[in-house]
Amino acid sequence: MITVSLIGIGTGNPDHVTAQAVRAMNLADLILIPLKGDDKADLAGLRQAICESCVTNPATRIEGFDLPVRDRATPDYLTRVNDWHDAIAAVWRDRINAHLEQGGGPRVALLVWGDPSLYDSTLRIAARVGRDIPIMLDVIPGLTSIQVLCAAHAIPLNELGASVMITTGRQLRDGGWPDGPGTVVVMLDAGGAFTSLYMPHYHIWWGAYARAGQSCAWLDHGHLHPAPDPYDASIRKVAMTPAAGVAGSATICKHPYGCQFSPLNALSRSARSFSQAAYYDPTFFDQRPERLIKYT
Amino acid sequence: MITVSLIGIGTGNPDHVTAQAVRAMNLADLILIPLKGDDKADLAGLRQAICESCVTNPATRIEGFDLPVRDRATPDYLTRVNDWHDAIAAVWRDRINAHLEQGGGPRVALLVWGDPSLYDSTLRIAARVGRDIPIMLDVIPGLTSIQVLCAAHAIPLNELGASVMITTGRQLRDGGWPDGPGTVVVMLDAGGAFTSLYMPHYHIWWGAYARAGQSCAWLDHGHLHPAPDPYDASIRKVAMTPAAGVAGSATICKHPYGCQFSPLNALSRSARSFSQAAYYDPTFFDQRPERLIKYT
Repeated sequence: MITVSLIGIGTGNPDHVTAQAVRAMNLADLILIPLKGDDKADLAGLRQAICESCVTNPATRIEGFDLPVRDRATPDYLTRVNDWHDAIAAVWRDRINAHLEQGGGPRVALLVWGDPSLYDSTLRIAARVGRDIPIMLDVIPGLTSIQVLCAAHAIPLNELGASVMITTGRQLRDGGWPDGPGTVVVMLDAGGAFTSLYMPHYHIWWGAYARAGQSCAWLDHGHLHPAPDPYDASIRKVAMTPAAGVAGSATICKHPYGCQFSPLNALSRSARSFSQAAYYDPTFFDQRPERLIKYT
Repeated sequence: MITVSLIGIGTGNPDHVTAQAVRAMNLADLILIPLKGDDKADLAGLRQAICESCVTNPATRIEGFDLPVRDRATPDYLTRVNDWHDAIAAVWRDRINAHLEQGGGPRVALLVWGDPSLYDSTLRIAARVGRDIPIMLDVIPGLTSIQVLCAAHAIPLNELGASVMITTGRQLRDGGWPDGPGTVVVMLDAGGAFTSLYMPHYHIWWGAYARAGQSCAWLDHGHLHPAPDPYDASIRKVAMTPAAGVAGSATICKHPYGCQFSPLNALSRSARSFSQAAYYDPTFFDQRPERLIKYT
């Protein structure tokens, strides 16, 4: 029986990888790394760097594969995504079969940004592979960008006893602020979906992660309207980083009533400065250029 | 300046602790462990066990403290919780001051079940301490029970492009199934809040964690109505474990439309059996009774 391990690796900081994830990588006979073309090669390099710092088993093979692209000619969103997942599953299946034909062992792993359970395709793709090849699934949880963002800002996600909605930029633009939750998190958003709503005094927290080969990180918060910070400009900068969408950037917004962590809270401010420094180590990528290995 | 580190340690499996959390524990001069009386002593023991497996710095002191109890005579929920947080903050402050008076170093840490951002009090308590003593906050994210539950069941949390609501048992009972999300997660629930709603064919996933000194774990899924599994009985068993509320157990329920991971999905079934074995190692607690150390 083939085992497919989907290993959550967090948002790119190797210190966020769990012992369970490291063990799963070392148990794998084959780790498949998707290549997304030149503009996203830094993410493949970052996966490779995480492999190199975690994998000590010399028998573990690490292989890149060309990721199919979405067909933008397909108008319907769900159809486009489902077709894309079908195409990726076919590539996984072919690479697994080729590996087995070469005498490779039955444990295959993929590294997943964030957590395999949240706005990630690998579970759905694995289910498609499972229709063609009998497989066992092994899921290793990883930290999400929501958790890393909350930790960096030193804020709780939920208000006391209140609900949290995690949604997409598309859903927020179409449906507005949902009924009920005190906190809304937007993911899969490339362009500041919250600015499409006029919500005076709602408070917003955002950030973006470092990009391999080009040190950059933003971490800020403020009122959505009126905005004390140039949120629009910042969120556009965030959206421009290749890591923003793929590593699962999150933006958090809170209802003004009952929000205990306002910018007027001195502790929150000092915590933010502190966490910002602790959170982002610009030397991590700069010191490891040799880890950005080319794939053949 | 005093630094207070709130370290997310996941749900009790030491393999879920990140390298960042281990480093933070070893940087601490003092780790404070709450004691909740006899019925929850196993959780203090579990925190102690995690300390023992992670802390190698001989200078790190580990101290238990008696956690104040909520005053059940206070009728209003938010007032009761806020008063309780005030009382806990006073104890933290006293313990920190006593530690400093004895010449202890300025880095204090607390271990937080799950993630400090999600349905956890420590950020709010630290903010109260910060009103009396200038402190810097350092938050280390940890895996939540939601992520561990999804991984154990090998299911995605969200349906494709859809929203997820994380809420409390109280909110669900009062407000019903919220408008919008395809998935609802209930936390802080001691009695199967989903059963208060009549939702035919909605699908539910649940589980509970091991309890130190008494091996036990439940992991199951099925239709909420009509229920193929004795959900009611199971969830009551879950609620009876001391770990259930405190370690932040979660129950996940999905809308029947568009739910791709039904019990009819053979892959999902095999994945579940596999993950169940991988997820729960009953030998972990049984082999380490000596770690359940008494506090003086």
